[in-house]
Formats: sequence, C-alpha cells, structure tokens
Amino acid sequence: MTASRVNKVFWLLVLLIVVPHSVVSALEDPLQSWNEGPVKTALVTFAEKITKEGGPDFVPPAERIAVFDNDGTLWAEQPMYFQLQFALDRVKELAPQHPEWKTKQPFRALLEGDKKVFSAGGEKYLLEVLAASHAGMTTDEFDGIVKNWLATATHPRFKRPYHELVYQPMIELLAYLRANGFKTFIVSGGGVEFMRAWVEKVYGIPPEQVVGSMGKQKFEVRNGTPVIVKLPAVDFVDDKEGKPIGIQKFIGRRPIFGFGNSDGDLQMLQWTAAGSGLRFMGLVHHTDAEREWAYDRTSHVGKLDKALDEAMAKSWTVVDMKQDWKRIFPFNER
Amino acid sequence: MTASRVNKVFWLLVLLIVVPHSVVSALEDPLQSWNEGPVKTALVTFAEKITKEGGPDFVPPAERIAVFDNDGTLWAEQPMYFQLQFALDRVKELAPQHPEWKTKQPFRALLEGDKKVFSAGGEKYLLEVLAASHAGMTTDEFDGIVKNWLATATHPRFKRPYHELVYQPMIELLAYLRANGFKTFIVSGGGVEFMRAWVEKVYGIPPEQVVGSMGKQKFEVRNGTPVIVKLPAVDFVDDKEGKPIGIQKFIGRRPIFGFGNSDGDLQMLQWTAAGSGLRFMGLVHHTDAEREWAYDRTSHVGKLDKALDEAMAKSWTVVDMKQDWKRIFPFNER
Repeated sequence: MTASRVNKVFWLLVLLIVVPHSVVSALEDPLQSWNEGPVKTALVTFAEKITKEGGPDFVPPAERIAVFDNDGTLWAEQPMYFQLQFALDRVKELAPQHPEWKTKQPFRALLEGDKKVFSAGGEKYLLEVLAASHAGMTTDEFDGIVKNWLATATHPRFKRPYHELVYQPMIELLAYLRANGFKTFIVSGGGVEFMRAWVEKVYGIPPEQVVGSMGKQKFEVRNGTPVIVKLPAVDFVDDKEGKPIGIQKFIGRRPIFGFGNSDGDLQMLQWTAAGSGLRFMGLVHHTDAEREWAYDRTSHVGKLDKALDEAMAKSWTVVDMKQDWKRIFPFNER
Repeated sequence: MTASRVNKVFWLLVLLIVVPHSVVSALEDPLQSWNEGPVKTALVTFAEKITKEGGPDFVPPAERIAVFDNDGTLWAEQPMYFQLQFALDRVKELAPQHPEWKTKQPFRALLEGDKKVFSAGGEKYLLEVLAASHAGMTTDEFDGIVKNWLATATHPRFKRPYHELVYQPMIELLAYLRANGFKTFIVSGGGVEFMRAWVEKVYGIPPEQVVGSMGKQKFEVRNGTPVIVKLPAVDFVDDKEGKPIGIQKFIGRRPIFGFGNSDGDLQMLQWTAAGSGLRFMGLVHHTDAEREWAYDRTSHVGKLDKALDEAMAKSWTVVDMKQDWKRIFPFNER
C-alpha cells in the first residue's frame, strides 16, 4: 500500500469513527413529517433536555419510558375501531359453521347488516361478538387469524390494508424517541394479542412492550403439546382508569412521556404528569376531515372532551393534525 | 504527520476496530463461578449456536427471550420464602395499630410464634397475612416499605440482608445472556411489586421485565394527586399453569431459554420446550447442605419432584449446586 493510499484509508476511518451519528442524521430531519411550529419544537426541546447529561432535566436511560395509545394515536380509528371490523369480518367468516346465528342476536343483526339493533345491544352485544371472534382457539391460532385478516382486508375509504393507515409523523416520533434512548410502549384499550400480531413490524415495538385489554386464558397439554387457549371471558380492560393500572402492572415504572387522543387516555396522562421532573403529555386532535377525519367532543369513536379541557388547562401539547402534520399516512406523497 | 506515524495510528485504529469483543472478554471468564463440566458446556454451547449468524440454530436478537424463576433459582428460599418473612415482619410492625390481632387468627398465632396453628390455616391464613401486609397502601408507599425492609432485615442463618443471598453463578449467567443479545425476564410466583423494588439493582433486570403474582389495584385522584392503591384481593397467581399464561400476557413471545428449580416451574419449561428450533431448559437442584441447603422431592418450600423426573426424561439441564457452582453467594470467597 502506498503512503497516499494509507492516508486515504486513514482519513476514511477517522471520518467513520469521529463524525458523530447526530451530525449524519441531522442531514435528514428525523421528524420530517412534522411541520415546523410549537408542537415539533416542544418534542425536540423535551428530548434534548432529558438527554443532556449534567443538565437539570437529565433522565437516566432506564427511566425513559414513553407510552402511546394506539387507536386514533398511532393509527386511524374511523369509521369504527379496526379491531371491531376484524371481529365483524370474523363473524361473517364463521357464520356457515353457526347456522344458529341466523336467528340469534347479536349475530343475526350483524349478518343482516342491521346496525341499529346491534348498537342498541350496547356492551352486552359487543362482548358476545368479541367472545365469538376472539376466543375458543389457541393463542398461536389467533395470531395467524389476525395476520391473515391484515393481509386480506381493506379499509372502506382508503381501500388499503388497515396496517397502512398508521400515522407517519407518529412512526417518526417513535423512532426519534428510541434514538434518544427511550423504550416505547403501546398502552391501548385494544386487545393485546390483536396488536402483538403486527405492531413490531409496523411500529418497531416488540410484543413485550404492548399493554392492552385481554381475555382470560387457560394452559393445557393437548396430546403432549402445551397450548394456551383463549377463553370467552374478560380479564382486564386497559382503558380510562385501567390505563395507569395497566402501566403499573405491566411496566412497573411511571412513564415520563405519554401520548393519546381521547378521554380514554386522560388517566394515563394524569399518571404520567404526576411524577417528578420534566414530563411530556400529548394529545392528537383529529382536525383534518380532508386527509383523515375531524372529530372530538361528540364522536362515538375516540371522544375527546374532558381530556381536551384538561390539556388546555394544564398546557399539555395538543397536535392539530391539519396544522402540524405535513403527511398523514406513509402512502401519502411527501 | 509523517507516513510512519500515520502507519502507526492506522494500525492502532485497525486493532481497535477489528479485534472482536469476544477476544477481549475471554480474558476474564464471564461464567467464572461455574465449575467446568457438562452444565457450563451446555450453557456456552447454546449461546454460541443461537448467536452464530448463518448457522442452523441462529435466533434473531428480538427472539432471544430468557425467563428465570426467582425464589430458589436466582436467590435462596429457605427456611421460608423471603417474601413471607417480609409479610410476617410487617404484621409484627403493624400490630400496635391493630389491637384486635391479639385475639384474631391468623395474626394471634403469628404474634405468638405459633407456627402450628398458622400452618394449619393453609392458604386462607396465608392470603389474610398477604392482604394485611401487602394492601391498603399506594404502590409508591409499598415500594418504600419493601426497600426499607431489605435495608434493615437480616437472614436468620447468614445474618445478612436478604438481597445478598442471590446466586453468584446465576447473576453471571444473566449478564452472559444479555451480552449475547438476550432480554432476561423474571417469571416468579412472588409478588411483582415486591420484586420490582430491588431486582434492577441486584440482577440488572428492569421492572418492565418482571412477571409475577399480583393483587387487584385501583386508580384514584386524592386531593388532585393520582395514586394507585393496592387492594386486598388476588388478581393473578403466576405459578404452575399460571407461568406460561403470565409469559403470554406480559411478554407475548415464547422464550427460547427457561430456568427454574421447582415443580412450580414445570409448565413454564414445557412451554419453553414446545417451540421450534434450539431451546434451553434448566433446573437448579439444591444439593449443597453445607454452603446452602439440600432439598427436593419432599420439601414444603421449592418442592422439586415431577419437574426433576421430566428433566431427566427429556434431557433438560440440571444444575447440581454442590458440583457445578464454584461459589454460591457473592459474599463467598472466590
């Protein structure tokens, strides 16, 4: 090797070692789908403060816990929760094996498309549909059923698989927090096993960092093979007061960063806010009827009323989707 | 800079980059408290196989989940589960505030040291003591109570704080697995909040990687401050059939590595074994009456009977504590 060639290799190595990652990544804005404004500034300022070693707001990496609601915060939730659509599709698929459903409510109403009768049945009907669609199989079988549904079903408005209706700015935020040493968790009212089937691939959040509602389960050995069977009974509802309890049970450490979009997230944000030191509480406000949907105080899905009042009273960060998001879904043009 | 100086710096850089970490760490054996023998060989061989990229047994880092029982596997459990000792100490401490306990069982028996009456009460008495000692306070208060107990109570035989009665070889094994890309979890019949108060410091396992038994909890806002209150009711028992269910609920991914020491761990090991690809199932067999304790098939604490038979039938790894462990506790001489 000539000295000049050694020199070239040498400087290349120096470059690779010395140039900090932050300089390289600054070339591409990690939050590029967020418009400049107070929300983006608040996010970046928070991350900078809590990672600044020796600074007054420094938080050790082990305590950098961030929690996110899922429906309406990380992916869309209109015209109905996607998991409910999954349950309805599942009932239709199973109907041939259940001739009795032709006359038995709430299945009859569902199969005949009678939304009025189904809605009138309230929580009781909902639980019956969830039991019929989410229980009676092993956890491995259920995982396969969810994956198959996501691979085949499409959203009525956007004509795309449901897992494409995730919010690009939030995916960037998850990655940005992780790059700043955070562990990112989902804390959702949705079913934990429904989410675990796909969130790792889509959000980069592993199954063990997903907290959600769950049914009871039973362990048994079938012909020498151990299986876990999903039972038709509710075990835990991870919504409202259930969210801080889910955080305490599953994570066991109070988050310093929380993001939601509805009144179901209020207690999670209160719990996040009540710890000591710097904290970040955020809400996604759905204000973009054109690119997504616009709804809040009177919506039957993702109602945002009390939490919006509290966010304003306490100066939590509220994302105005129309204003703050340059891009909504990954499939939107940059 | 002269070409010769450039040359020196160049080779230094090459050295820093090229010499693999494994060579450096081989200077100090990461499993130095394990005697050479089939168990140590099995552990190292397993780690090498599943981390060998391109090899037939390679497992991607995200799937490297290792689960460990706690009592009798990571720390001692004689002459009684340490958490039960905590509960008894707590009852004594609270007694002055509960004059009615002087005549009310099981508290009277405990305060008078009448083990016979207490034992005769079985699970009912045990649950009453757990409720009196583990509930009625906030989660933050309980955390402080446990930390204070660990800082002041000492083990009757070893005259040391309980958290010093952890097994040095297992602490090395936890670190070794993490160095090989594993996420290490505790899956214990013990109370999840009792463990979370100290396991991060002692084992390097963060609270969010602890699965355990738990009581019901309630979220409420007290004078503007949100708290979570521990209720005197059992929510989940993470033992026997409960262990694979706890794994499914909290981790959501099947482990490839499991370690226990009693029949309470059998289903966890069966669940670990039943996945595809290479797996490691281990049991600690307490065979060292001199340095620790010797017990198995007839012990009332940590009974090891069916699991030992199954381990032998299926060629799982069984640690013979006397034979395989050079050192038991960190305070033992090297």
